[in-house]
Amino acid sequence: MTTDVGAERGRVAVIGAGSIGLGWITLFLAHGYRVRVNSTRSNIETVIHDALRLFTPGLPGASRDPADLAGRLEIEPDLERAVADVAVVQENTPENLEIKQDLFARLEKHAAAGTLLLSSTSTMLPADLGARMDNPSHLIVGHPFNPPHVIPLVEVVGDTTSDPDAVSAAAEFYRSVGKTPVVLRRPIAAFAANRLQSALLQESIHLVREGVVTVAELDDIVTGSLGPRWATVGPFQSFHLGGGPGGLRNWLGTLGSGLQQGWAALGRPVLDEDTLDLVLDQTDQAFGGIAYEELAARRDRLQKAVLAAVASADDAPPPRSGS
Amino acid sequence: MTTDVGAERGRVAVIGAGSIGLGWITLFLAHGYRVRVNSTRSNIETVIHDALRLFTPGLPGASRDPADLAGRLEIEPDLERAVADVAVVQENTPENLEIKQDLFARLEKHAAAGTLLLSSTSTMLPADLGARMDNPSHLIVGHPFNPPHVIPLVEVVGDTTSDPDAVSAAAEFYRSVGKTPVVLRRPIAAFAANRLQSALLQESIHLVREGVVTVAELDDIVTGSLGPRWATVGPFQSFHLGGGPGGLRNWLGTLGSGLQQGWAALGRPVLDEDTLDLVLDQTDQAFGGIAYEELAARRDRLQKAVLAAVASADDAPPPRSGS
Repeated sequence: MTTDVGAERGRVAVIGAGSIGLGWITLFLAHGYRVRVNSTRSNIETVIHDALRLFTPGLPGASRDPADLAGRLEIEPDLERAVADVAVVQENTPENLEIKQDLFARLEKHAAAGTLLLSSTSTMLPADLGARMDNPSHLIVGHPFNPPHVIPLVEVVGDTTSDPDAVSAAAEFYRSVGKTPVVLRRPIAAFAANRLQSALLQESIHLVREGVVTVAELDDIVTGSLGPRWATVGPFQSFHLGGGPGGLRNWLGTLGSGLQQGWAALGRPVLDEDTLDLVLDQTDQAFGGIAYEELAARRDRLQKAVLAAVASADDAPPPRSGS
Repeated sequence: MTTDVGAERGRVAVIGAGSIGLGWITLFLAHGYRVRVNSTRSNIETVIHDALRLFTPGLPGASRDPADLAGRLEIEPDLERAVADVAVVQENTPENLEIKQDLFARLEKHAAAGTLLLSSTSTMLPADLGARMDNPSHLIVGHPFNPPHVIPLVEVVGDTTSDPDAVSAAAEFYRSVGKTPVVLRRPIAAFAANRLQSALLQESIHLVREGVVTVAELDDIVTGSLGPRWATVGPFQSFHLGGGPGGLRNWLGTLGSGLQQGWAALGRPVLDEDTLDLVLDQTDQAFGGIAYEELAARRDRLQKAVLAAVASADDAPPPRSGS
C-alpha cells in the first residue's frame, strides 16, 4: 500500500514537543499542513507559541507570521484521537527503546492502516522500534539534523521489515516540506551523518587532548576551512576537484597514497576524566560567558544565511548524471 | 629578531606557480603587495595572467580588475635575485623533502637575515624542511586550504627550531591578506585540518564500501547537514549548543555517553583495488560528465557566497572570552 502525502496538505500528528518536535511543528505548519500535537507537557500551548515566535525567523525563504502558522495547529492530549485520520505521524519521544516500542504498538492500533509512522530517533532502527507491532511495514526512521526547521537533511531509514513504498512515501513527505531526504540503502547503527560527525569529533578531541589546539582554535579551523568547503561541495567532489582536471583518479595517484597511512595515525582518544575536564573547561572558557539563546539564535541566523547563499549562487547547478 | 611585514605593503617572493602558488600570487597582489614570482614554467607570464582572470572573481569583497593586480607583478627566473630585498618568501614547490631542503638551504644564502621563509607544504614539518640550513629559525609552515585566495584558514606551524617571533610575524602576515591564521601549539604530522578531513573521509569511504550510500548521496548528506553547520559554528560549539541551556556538560551527560562506543564502531576501510574501483566509478558517474573548470568555478562561486553570507549575518558576533 502506498501513502500519498505530498499531493494534498493534509493532517500530520507530531508526538512529543521537545526541541526536535517543536522544530518539526514549526516546519510542517509553515508548509501548509494541519498539525495535531500530542504531548505530555502541561503548558504545551504556551511552549508551542513561544517556539513558533522563536523559530519562524529561521525558516528558509520569506518571513512568516507565527499567528498564521498557529491557525493550523491543534492540541490533542489523547493519543488515540491525535492519530485518527492523519496521513503521517512524526514521533519525537525520548531515546528509550521501551518507550518507543510501546508507542509504536499503540500507534498501530489507533492510526489508520497505511499511515506513515515516522520516528525522529538518531540511534534506533525500524526493526527494533517495531518489535511489538504486528505489521511494522510503515514504520520508517526520518532522522532530522538539529534544528529540523533549518538544516535540510533528513536521513530516511527503512529496514528489512519496511515496505519500500512507505520508504519512498516518507522521502516524498520530507521533500514536501522543503527538506533534502537521503534514503539509506541499508540500515546501519547511528546512520550516516552522525557517524561522519563522530569521526571528526574523535580527531577533534584528540587534537585538543594532545595540546595541538584549544577547543576555540579547533572550531576556528573548521569554520575557516572544512565548513565552508562542505557547505558547497561534499567530501568526494572536493577530492575530485583537488585532483585538478585529472579528478579523483589523479588525486588518489598522488596525495591519496598517503591516505591509508594517515588513517593509521589518527587519534584514538579515551574519554577519561582528565580529557573530559580539559574539553569542558576550554568549552566553558570559549562559550560559557554567552547565553544559550544568544548563541543558538546566531547559529540559526548564520545557517539560514549560508543555505540561502548557496541556493542563490547556485542558480545554474550543473547537471548530475549519477544519483 | 622580529619581522614586521604587516605595517607596509612590501615585496613578497612566491616560488612555484602551480595551483597553490597561483592562488597566493592573486591574493598577495589583491592586498597591495608587490609580488615577485620565481618559477621554472616557460610560459609563466601567460599562466599568471590566465590565473588572475580566473581567480579574481573568487576573491572576497568588491570585484577587482586583474590588470590592476598585474601592475604589481614581477617575474624573476633567478632565485638569488627573486628573494633579494623581500620581507617574505612563500614557497610552493612539489611535496618532495629533498627539493624543499635544498631550496631552503639556498634561500638562507640569498635572502636577507630575518626574511620570513614560509612553506605551503601540507605534509612536512619545519625542523625537517630546514635540516640543511645553518639557522632555520625563520622557516615557518603556512599551510593554506585550497584554493588559497578563497578559503580563510592558514595553519601556521612552527617547530622546536623556530623563533616564536617569526611564528607571530607569519600569522600577522597572513592576517594582512585577510586570512584566518591558526597557530598550532605544537607540530604534528599532517597538521590539524587535514587530519580532521581524513577522519571524515575514512568514514565516508566506509559507508560507500558498505553500500549504505553512494558517493553522490554521501556528498548530499554532508552539504545538507554538517557543511552548513560547520560553516557557522565549529564542532565544539555545535555540541555545546546540542546540549541546550546545559551546554556541552549536559550533552556529554546524555548522548555523549555513547560517543566512545560510537568511535569503536567506526569503519576501518582498506583501500584495496575493489574499494578504489567502487569509489572511482561512482565519482565518475556523479561528476565525470562535467568539466573540471565548470565544477571548480561553481565551487569557488558558492564558497565565496557562503563566506560573505556568514560575515554579513554575523555583523554582531558575540564576544569570546577564551582564545
